[in-house]
Amino acid sequence: MGCNVAIAGVTGAVGQEFLSILSERNFPATSYRMLASSRSAGKKITFQNKEYIIEELTRDSFKGIDIALFSAGASRSKEFASAAVAAGAVVVDNSSAFRMTPDVPLVVPEINPQAIKQHKGIIANPNCSTIIAIVPVWPLHKANKIKRMVVSTYQAASGAGQAAMLELEEQAREVLAGKPVTCKALKYQLAFNLFSHNSAIGPNGYNEEEMKMVKETHKIFDCSDIAITCTCIRVAVLRAHCESINLEFTDPITPEEVRELLNTAPGVTVLDDRASNRFPMPIDATGKDNVFVGRIRQDESIPDNRGINLWVAGDQIRKGAALNAIQIAERLL
Amino acid sequence: MGCNVAIAGVTGAVGQEFLSILSERNFPATSYRMLASSRSAGKKITFQNKEYIIEELTRDSFKGIDIALFSAGASRSKEFASAAVAAGAVVVDNSSAFRMTPDVPLVVPEINPQAIKQHKGIIANPNCSTIIAIVPVWPLHKANKIKRMVVSTYQAASGAGQAAMLELEEQAREVLAGKPVTCKALKYQLAFNLFSHNSAIGPNGYNEEEMKMVKETHKIFDCSDIAITCTCIRVAVLRAHCESINLEFTDPITPEEVRELLNTAPGVTVLDDRASNRFPMPIDATGKDNVFVGRIRQDESIPDNRGINLWVAGDQIRKGAALNAIQIAERLL
Repeated sequence: MGCNVAIAGVTGAVGQEFLSILSERNFPATSYRMLASSRSAGKKITFQNKEYIIEELTRDSFKGIDIALFSAGASRSKEFASAAVAAGAVVVDNSSAFRMTPDVPLVVPEINPQAIKQHKGIIANPNCSTIIAIVPVWPLHKANKIKRMVVSTYQAASGAGQAAMLELEEQAREVLAGKPVTCKALKYQLAFNLFSHNSAIGPNGYNEEEMKMVKETHKIFDCSDIAITCTCIRVAVLRAHCESINLEFTDPITPEEVRELLNTAPGVTVLDDRASNRFPMPIDATGKDNVFVGRIRQDESIPDNRGINLWVAGDQIRKGAALNAIQIAERLL
Repeated sequence: MGCNVAIAGVTGAVGQEFLSILSERNFPATSYRMLASSRSAGKKITFQNKEYIIEELTRDSFKGIDIALFSAGASRSKEFASAAVAAGAVVVDNSSAFRMTPDVPLVVPEINPQAIKQHKGIIANPNCSTIIAIVPVWPLHKANKIKRMVVSTYQAASGAGQAAMLELEEQAREVLAGKPVTCKALKYQLAFNLFSHNSAIGPNGYNEEEMKMVKETHKIFDCSDIAITCTCIRVAVLRAHCESINLEFTDPITPEEVRELLNTAPGVTVLDDRASNRFPMPIDATGKDNVFVGRIRQDESIPDNRGINLWVAGDQIRKGAALNAIQIAERLL
């Protein structure tokens, strides 16, 4: 296939990361088209020493495009992805718009690359918290089927977009100066504070972020009988998510076996130094491709050595979004 | 009993909170003696419109003292508590020194006030994360025995002392100014970051904080067959801990039953507004006596409706330390 690439949402945090990663990885594009809302249309952007003019994202944006990377929010994906597909492009969509649509593959290349082939024009990129949890959990599940998973997240501001990252810094300045705190991009004060993820709460009491983690994991693992429960929390961190993951396996498993499986797992870096108390932190994962894993321990509250606790950190904008989408695009070629 | 009170460690974060709470609650002391290390001895302190001179904590500090509130670290408690007891005082010790000593009661007044009577001179105040978790968990356990508990903490800087709180603010200023970050009181960068609790890691891979939560809960509940596993994390928050708590009960239980039990539980405030996505945050709990509870949900990953998820927030310096100790002292009178 050809390689004319459109980026929809190029001015956002993920859009900007698309550009960095495409450049770093020497993505073999023949041309790029930079798309954003009318607000940004006409602005100039320099990429790989070439100047581009940002065009407004419309249904006519995709003529001649082979791959369209979308990160402009779910409503824009719903509005424009079909036009990209009609124009002959394959859409790799970073939003939640199509993730649970039955004939849209939902892909983490380290886990289910085979699903890419089944696409009918759209491939969905999973939620950031889902990706960061399951990249290290998948090799364990393959070796010893997971029965139950209890996850608590520590999610960065970046998940709420670039404006939220800037606002977190602004809020910190305000708190330090004893001033009232600005809450526009963020629903509540995040600086020196934290809050339950403010996506809509369903009738079962879980927010959308928590249910995404449950449903997307089932779809990506092609295994809907793993029992999963999540608590999603936004913390005062800029751009890397951490997660506390408690796993119940079918058969006994030791921390040594887990460490061995993760040491050779794609996309995973084990950082688990008990002696010097050195485990994954958001600043370790920031700007890195891999998901960092540590605090690998037997969970003695589960009988027969079938329980393991993990602690993970992954860059939300990178592996949680832009990198994963570009890995999918690379496999399309 | 009489009511001459000594405060050992009066200059620390908890010591200062002792003073605020004693004053707020009109604690019926006849006299106060303010004790600290030699570094602070001779300094003046004003309390309830009276000036006190801080005295050096020594084995001779306790003549005539009836109640000694200790919050000067475990090694000072080990060195000086026996002298206080020998002088006829009852020690309420905020450190970890005596918590697991068999004949020392470990008390949360909302849970096991009856244990106070069994003291032989020393009563231990539990770890802050333990107190904040179990104040709301106890009324549930009484109604329906808990089989297993999975906890992930979001702990404030205050747990590492006053210097750590100041350093978190200083680090935030440094990060915002693009400067290198100072790590003296805190082992790693905490501003715009978080890290695994840096207490010593035992042979099973759990840090001391995590094992305190397990062992202290068993002792306070007088029930060592609850299976408990914890992951303790320090976050960029000043003085209130949050915890994500997953509970497996013996019998079925609904979120409505949990809410009803917690609505009348002592020391608990339910803040669980799904419609407006308003749940406990550290800044809600800061300066408050009660533990705030929200995100009360059925955990559908546990069969037969025997699972519940909770989210709690409690002031680490207050209910997690100073308030609990003063509640014990009040019951001694």
